[in-house]
Amino acid sequence: MTEASFFFLVREELPQVEARMLAFRHPSDQIVQSALENLLRAGGKRIRPTVALLAGQMLRAPRDGLLDFAAAIEMLHTATLVHDDLIDGATLRRGTPTLNSRWSTEATVLAGDYIFACAAYQASQTHSLEVMQEFARTLITIISGELGQMFERSTLISGEEYERRIYAKTGALFELASRGGALLCNERPEVVHSLGRYGRCLGMAFQIVDDVLDFTGQSVRIGKPVGSDLRQGLITLPVLYYQKRHPEDTRFAALMDPNRPSATDVDQLVETIGQSEAIQESLAQAHRYASEAKELLKGLPENRYRQALLDLTEYVVSRDL
Amino acid sequence: MTEASFFFLVREELPQVEARMLAFRHPSDQIVQSALENLLRAGGKRIRPTVALLAGQMLRAPRDGLLDFAAAIEMLHTATLVHDDLIDGATLRRGTPTLNSRWSTEATVLAGDYIFACAAYQASQTHSLEVMQEFARTLITIISGELGQMFERSTLISGEEYERRIYAKTGALFELASRGGALLCNERPEVVHSLGRYGRCLGMAFQIVDDVLDFTGQSVRIGKPVGSDLRQGLITLPVLYYQKRHPEDTRFAALMDPNRPSATDVDQLVETIGQSEAIQESLAQAHRYASEAKELLKGLPENRYRQALLDLTEYVVSRDL
Repeated sequence: MTEASFFFLVREELPQVEARMLAFRHPSDQIVQSALENLLRAGGKRIRPTVALLAGQMLRAPRDGLLDFAAAIEMLHTATLVHDDLIDGATLRRGTPTLNSRWSTEATVLAGDYIFACAAYQASQTHSLEVMQEFARTLITIISGELGQMFERSTLISGEEYERRIYAKTGALFELASRGGALLCNERPEVVHSLGRYGRCLGMAFQIVDDVLDFTGQSVRIGKPVGSDLRQGLITLPVLYYQKRHPEDTRFAALMDPNRPSATDVDQLVETIGQSEAIQESLAQAHRYASEAKELLKGLPENRYRQALLDLTEYVVSRDL
Repeated sequence: MTEASFFFLVREELPQVEARMLAFRHPSDQIVQSALENLLRAGGKRIRPTVALLAGQMLRAPRDGLLDFAAAIEMLHTATLVHDDLIDGATLRRGTPTLNSRWSTEATVLAGDYIFACAAYQASQTHSLEVMQEFARTLITIISGELGQMFERSTLISGEEYERRIYAKTGALFELASRGGALLCNERPEVVHSLGRYGRCLGMAFQIVDDVLDFTGQSVRIGKPVGSDLRQGLITLPVLYYQKRHPEDTRFAALMDPNRPSATDVDQLVETIGQSEAIQESLAQAHRYASEAKELLKGLPENRYRQALLDLTEYVVSRDL
């Protein structure tokens, strides 16, 4: 299984999705316009719109609405990244300088708002009331999760709390991406439901792998410093597993202290966790989600798009390791 | 004509609108929840939902959808204020401390985002595709205007540029508020159009009066320091008129200089403009917009709601002076 197998099926659609993302020409200012274009162009692998396109194509959703929907999904994702990077004080995203590292806080806030607004408008172009309602509900879930996370930084969380967080952070938007296609062709409730759960499980697996890569990835490949999450007091699954097995490691408690230790201490802890069994345990959890996701595709139309979704699921848990 | 005449007609509806604004119970955190409630409760006179309610009631729009729509309008307004105050570094709004004066920048950004998301969801509760589309389009106009304004601060603008700015800042949302009722009952395009133009003119008049009050109001009544706009390099109509009549006043050019003069210099200039003929000239422009607004109501159903909209228009240009 290679990436090509599923990206090949959307090779014509993805450029059209990007064209719709870039079709907004509102701000009179040239600086603003080109910054927004750069943000929208500088996407990663466009995995969320790919999920939306494949799920919709599997069910023969109307092409035009599906392209608008996929564009709306990726724009919403881009908008949340702009505000996320601002909040985290991140200077790099996918290896390029973040907007907040170049613009004032104020301008960055507005740029994110602007992309949110364009995403909402793009969603309205699907002419589907259900899609728009779920779009707004997903936005509430995402931001609500970020708010909660902000007020709970540097505190120990439970495994359930971690699952809630990554659902809000990633699962909810993948869920929307995969449900959308079914909503656009007024599919039976059980199909909408199964596809939504598929997306949710896929998103959970995706985020756990991301959280693992934050410990094991090379900074040059993940486009940001290794251990970024822990440095910001963000507790992820590898940390939870490590801490459970090694309650005697006091470095962790010290890190949660308001008076943080020096950077070197965190480096050591990141390295220890990255070499511990917590990594394999976390990946096993990601694989459980991936298996559940694949299970949920049974009963859906057996065509090459469904096969591509199966391949994509496998790819998500085996990438870059 | 008193305020009571039009607020009386929505005395039962406004509390229901507020109840819908407060019905969101997402963030798990109690601090976040109560801060959001305070923001949504601490509204001013709720003039935008009042316009929406009166316009809708005049046309006998379905009650439930109208209440949701009015709530969505006021929530959108509240969300923009949260980010506006952050961007302006404002410490007071309606006499109470702003969220950004108490919370971190990051938390304030997210709180605004959260209210945007709730507003979008509330708009989706109208079950009207047109309302949702216009809602998203209005959001784009508002934020696009703010972005433009930010990159053009402390530069001289033309009268046309001023009109474009206040349309984006205030006219667009009043336009949406008054059009919404017509959209909700699938009115003929000419009714939707007239009501939209009515709202636009009303909003323009409202903003010009606001800009005048920034020079002539007492800080205790307007809830913020006099001359706030000019201090932030924001050029409004009184400044444009004053500058046209007094090109010899060099204090203005000095103010636009990147190396700002001391606070005292601005105080003097604010006082000079506040006592100049530019104030009456600006108010005359507001009255022209109000007259045009009232003209646009001719031909619409002659009932007490239409009369209330006429009264409200008169009130907007005669308040607090």
